[in-house]
Amino acid sequence: MIYADNAATTRLDDEALNAMLPYLREQYGNASQPYSFSRSAKKALKDARETIASCINANPEQILFTSCGTESDNWVIKGLALSHSTSWRVAVSEIEHHAILNPCKQLGKIGYKTNYIPVDNSGLIDRHHFENIKSDFISVMFANNEIGTIQPIKELSRIAHCNGALFHTDAVQAVGHVQIDVKDLDIDFLSASAHKFNGPKGIGFLYAKDSSLLKAFVCGGSQENGLRAGTENVASIVGMAVALKRNCEEIEANKKHSMMLEDVLLDALKTSEIDFIRNGARDRIPGNISLSFKGCDGEGLLHLLDLNGICVSTGSACDSRNTQVSHVLKAICLDEDYARGTIRISLGKNNTVDEVRKIAEVLVKSVGKMNL
Amino acid sequence: MIYADNAATTRLDDEALNAMLPYLREQYGNASQPYSFSRSAKKALKDARETIASCINANPEQILFTSCGTESDNWVIKGLALSHSTSWRVAVSEIEHHAILNPCKQLGKIGYKTNYIPVDNSGLIDRHHFENIKSDFISVMFANNEIGTIQPIKELSRIAHCNGALFHTDAVQAVGHVQIDVKDLDIDFLSASAHKFNGPKGIGFLYAKDSSLLKAFVCGGSQENGLRAGTENVASIVGMAVALKRNCEEIEANKKHSMMLEDVLLDALKTSEIDFIRNGARDRIPGNISLSFKGCDGEGLLHLLDLNGICVSTGSACDSRNTQVSHVLKAICLDEDYARGTIRISLGKNNTVDEVRKIAEVLVKSVGKMNL
Repeated sequence: MIYADNAATTRLDDEALNAMLPYLREQYGNASQPYSFSRSAKKALKDARETIASCINANPEQILFTSCGTESDNWVIKGLALSHSTSWRVAVSEIEHHAILNPCKQLGKIGYKTNYIPVDNSGLIDRHHFENIKSDFISVMFANNEIGTIQPIKELSRIAHCNGALFHTDAVQAVGHVQIDVKDLDIDFLSASAHKFNGPKGIGFLYAKDSSLLKAFVCGGSQENGLRAGTENVASIVGMAVALKRNCEEIEANKKHSMMLEDVLLDALKTSEIDFIRNGARDRIPGNISLSFKGCDGEGLLHLLDLNGICVSTGSACDSRNTQVSHVLKAICLDEDYARGTIRISLGKNNTVDEVRKIAEVLVKSVGKMNL
Repeated sequence: MIYADNAATTRLDDEALNAMLPYLREQYGNASQPYSFSRSAKKALKDARETIASCINANPEQILFTSCGTESDNWVIKGLALSHSTSWRVAVSEIEHHAILNPCKQLGKIGYKTNYIPVDNSGLIDRHHFENIKSDFISVMFANNEIGTIQPIKELSRIAHCNGALFHTDAVQAVGHVQIDVKDLDIDFLSASAHKFNGPKGIGFLYAKDSSLLKAFVCGGSQENGLRAGTENVASIVGMAVALKRNCEEIEANKKHSMMLEDVLLDALKTSEIDFIRNGARDRIPGNISLSFKGCDGEGLLHLLDLNGICVSTGSACDSRNTQVSHVLKAICLDEDYARGTIRISLGKNNTVDEVRKIAEVLVKSVGKMNL
């Protein structure tokens, strides 16, 4: 099996799992209880918060644990909206993940003003449109999940602030894969998901520069300083911190490795006769390779690769049951002849040169078969 | 260490953990992806859903996975409210968990009509008030987390339906501890949390008799039939199913064991000279023992027990940082002299007679010391 779908999910890091096990076994105390037995769980939460904060240059109290990146996205948008009247304005890019788009649509339906920001052919935000947005809140994803395009977040946040808007970025594809310094970027909110950086599934976080701006979305008990209720998932939080720390320590080496693998793949494809486009901007998330093969069927390609033990994705990882041309490929105005033949190969630190050569070989054969 | 705080959280069942490990190691595929590698994860989700459904006599498609009981509660209340105008009416008991009360308060603030149903001295719903509620949605917890009182859910649901309301029960303390048959109870929604029945933290479910009534609360991707977005937390879902199945298989034996332990504890306390009340109705969740000691300080008692290696709780397990007399003890009109001296001992299947004798011994000494 060759796993090349790391943008969909990643293998849990062995050290992260080992760090989780004590909290899945003997250290099962509820971290919010005051007795001695819970001290270890409480300490683990504190340490994990500090570790995660240091990985993105945040302060520990700015890190709020959630159950996933999708929850972080829903929280920041709907939590903020519902603490304002419907005159509150939200603007997001057209190529956001559905975890951003769908909450916006929900808000639109109940009367909030929503604005969708177009992108160019490479997926980069239309700067002219962006500079003229009148909004109270703007969300632009750090790196697109389908085509890898990295946005100029620091600049976008600066413009948003000049225009009086709060700025959020869905950094689910970026955290643990590229350097992120929230102080330097000067952003207000950031969403992340552990299983995208070799942490466990079912855990994520929301960075909030000033958490007093937030209202609880999942409310009840006083966990997370009253901002996210529910008994703390200590084991998964610990696993998330270890995985993020390990990825961040190796971030440059992993990036170099992924980019070398990209070159191997693209060189092999270029020397073949097949007609394809690589989507995305020059600055992409390392290892994210969206390829559109003319006259092919992406789903068919996925299945031919699968028959050879290779895992890749068609559209967005989180919505693979939807086989229509994705909203991202539509937004970048990709020719339908290419768009229908799109697959996403996402390589990570665990992939090898041999694997990538095999992917290229099977891909060239499969595309050839389809074009017969 | 004697762990007697099973209403706050429970030790993860060893078999549940063993069932989780393959999905934390080699079977890390995203369950929503279409390739062969994800088949095992997809099959595990399907099996877990069937197992959980069978434990409460539901159909598999009526089980929706969430990140915790608190999320299930927030979802059902806020998800339903936000798909209606503010003329939608919600009624909940005064002794609900904050995971129900706080969403209601949020709704109240934005104009929804909310109604709080009083209870009698034992924590049972005021039947006269209940029969006269005009509401679109009523939520009454199956068993109270602080005092253990079990409500006549079947009868309450029947009355709610007669009056045209949907009926939800927060069964976080009950699922896996008492027999629950959602068809026989004829309820519309039920919330549950895995870590209260020896499953992992950070996972729960919502039962919905007719899920088409629900709107997504955490929205984005198409997971959970479009009703709960976010990459499926396969390992924790598998662990939840195994833990629930094992608890349900032993439910009568566990109940008998817990009730025997209750008798041992109460007999020991009764033969002492100390002045105390046991709170709750005759029908209580097995092992939940809320005791109020006259003239004592609950927090002080907790610490004296802790010094002897015994873990118990003061107020509500999920809000232990709040040391005021809890809303539950206020609602049952407990004399303040007793209320301030309240602790909750919650025994489970892993507790022994020797442990309970030790608890009684330390408790009698500690109360004696405090009353000097």
